[in-house]
Amino acid sequence: MKLVLDAMGGDFGPAPNIEAAIDFAREFGHEIVLVGKQEVLRPLLNQHSTANLHLPIVHASEVIEMGEHPAQAVKAKKDASMNVGMRMVRDGEADGFVTMGNSGGALASALFTLGRIRGIQRPAISTVFPTTKGWVFVLDVGANADCRPEYLLQFGLMGSIYSERVLNVRKPRVAIISNGEEEGKGNELTQQAYALLKQAPINFIGNAEGRDLPEGMADVYVTDGFTGNVIIKLSEGIGSFIKGMLREEITRDTKGKVGGLLIRDALKRISKRTDYEEIGGAPLLGVDGVVIIGHGRSNARAIRCALLRAAECVERGVVDAIEKGLEALPKPDVRSSVERNTELKVS
Amino acid sequence: MKLVLDAMGGDFGPAPNIEAAIDFAREFGHEIVLVGKQEVLRPLLNQHSTANLHLPIVHASEVIEMGEHPAQAVKAKKDASMNVGMRMVRDGEADGFVTMGNSGGALASALFTLGRIRGIQRPAISTVFPTTKGWVFVLDVGANADCRPEYLLQFGLMGSIYSERVLNVRKPRVAIISNGEEEGKGNELTQQAYALLKQAPINFIGNAEGRDLPEGMADVYVTDGFTGNVIIKLSEGIGSFIKGMLREEITRDTKGKVGGLLIRDALKRISKRTDYEEIGGAPLLGVDGVVIIGHGRSNARAIRCALLRAAECVERGVVDAIEKGLEALPKPDVRSSVERNTELKVS
Repeated sequence: MKLVLDAMGGDFGPAPNIEAAIDFAREFGHEIVLVGKQEVLRPLLNQHSTANLHLPIVHASEVIEMGEHPAQAVKAKKDASMNVGMRMVRDGEADGFVTMGNSGGALASALFTLGRIRGIQRPAISTVFPTTKGWVFVLDVGANADCRPEYLLQFGLMGSIYSERVLNVRKPRVAIISNGEEEGKGNELTQQAYALLKQAPINFIGNAEGRDLPEGMADVYVTDGFTGNVIIKLSEGIGSFIKGMLREEITRDTKGKVGGLLIRDALKRISKRTDYEEIGGAPLLGVDGVVIIGHGRSNARAIRCALLRAAECVERGVVDAIEKGLEALPKPDVRSSVERNTELKVS
Repeated sequence: MKLVLDAMGGDFGPAPNIEAAIDFAREFGHEIVLVGKQEVLRPLLNQHSTANLHLPIVHASEVIEMGEHPAQAVKAKKDASMNVGMRMVRDGEADGFVTMGNSGGALASALFTLGRIRGIQRPAISTVFPTTKGWVFVLDVGANADCRPEYLLQFGLMGSIYSERVLNVRKPRVAIISNGEEEGKGNELTQQAYALLKQAPINFIGNAEGRDLPEGMADVYVTDGFTGNVIIKLSEGIGSFIKGMLREEITRDTKGKVGGLLIRDALKRISKRTDYEEIGGAPLLGVDGVVIIGHGRSNARAIRCALLRAAECVERGVVDAIEKGLEALPKPDVRSSVERNTELKVS
């Protein structure tokens, strides 16, 4: 197998990318193409012993930075590492692409270069979310701020396939995030998506409320990219908020300080259970190729995990399974009720 | 002043309601009408010494239960304590209504009985949210799953007025919850609402991401009732999740257990800083009268706080201020771009 790693991606630059590629190539024997600035990558790579490993560098003169406007940067910087890597996947020169860079950039680059799987209306950015029952899978968390019910139906299918094939969940339970548990709750979008998901050949268990998410009631949570984005950023924010309060209140007196030292190991275990870096990346689903996006803050260990996810997607045929799975989905009335209502008003 | 308290509302039944009413009447000298089942309330009230306090009981033979379908229950149970209380406010027999009961029921009862303030398109259920900088105000958290940009504009105005007059924030900063900070980020709804809020005579500071909420970047956060509902329930869920993990990991070994005992006071302080019960209720804004809804889990102390909020709303003329404030709002093109686009397609 041959994977391409965006060696320029992530908050810590090329070093952890190179370290992860070496570890991964050594452990699994796969070829990892490092795409990025040759003059930066070569000296870094030469600091390691890489005998018998397949770690070619493919030069890319530009980089999509974290703060850039994704679509504009991807179009302007033809020779960005992301674009070069995606082209290799498109042209069959590599089996999958992994980046810790700008996730909007990865979405734009994948859409322009790889395109969508035939029949997929919109790709989705996914993530994993820590719960009392382990990590669960959530999509879309940012690709599509405005969704149609059919997009959510396809997200449910794609999430179910990824959860089953890569996260090894048998018959993954798929839920839709809503503002109430009962059928009939929701906004117009989720109510219509509910009706479609109910008919799909997946293990759809209905609506999940916000509080069900950290309880891990389902294995796959489907939502629009606006709500999904608010959910992951709010969760990060609440995590930091509680951490900050703990630190502040515990260090307020000596008794607390001593207690704080004694619970340090417990806090480390909690950090391990909830830290995204422990789990690596998550796929960009719906584009015509394997693409894994990791967190910008990823260390070498997280990047190694992301490479592993990519290898699993390739080995377990996730892209093909999605294309085949689409055939079995219910064919919705393409005109949503919003349009029908408006037409009624107009006529 | 004369407030009506739904003495049947809340998870703990009439006892904490009666206790709170007595405390409040004693402290402020106001009249508190206890509405509910006479045969239940009278014996409970008689257990306390209430000399010189104005605590009449108004009989209501029915109760809207927590699990009931709000609108159906409110219509079917004409003599429910909520309906009886709202009618007293409508008929000028009381200045405000307070309940710890079914919030959807309170919304339905208020809409049917009090109606909306003239010019208000949709009322909003609000809440307070704990942040690093204290409590902030969030609306809508459940009244309107599908919103139009003009609703969010009015939520911004109402939130700003409440924050300034009752929460004593000078020039409250109003933000709209979105999936990115920059202007232009958002879904179609928030982008259009942004344009309207920018022109409104309030201190609008732009988009807030999910992670900005626990940081207390703004004083008032505006969102649609679907996203708002997901936000508050997710926050509760994450709080319980982290609490559960702390308990589990700390009690895993003796060192942790000792540490846990030493940080008990710190954890109590955190609980105080984040527990909704400490803050009482939040208003149902946009209906033509003062209505405060508290958490079902409220104890007497929280109910006393909710009564105080109601008294402040009355004293500081929140309802009148909203009606006047509406006049200064930008008048949006009533046809949203969605409709315009569809018309273009149809014609």
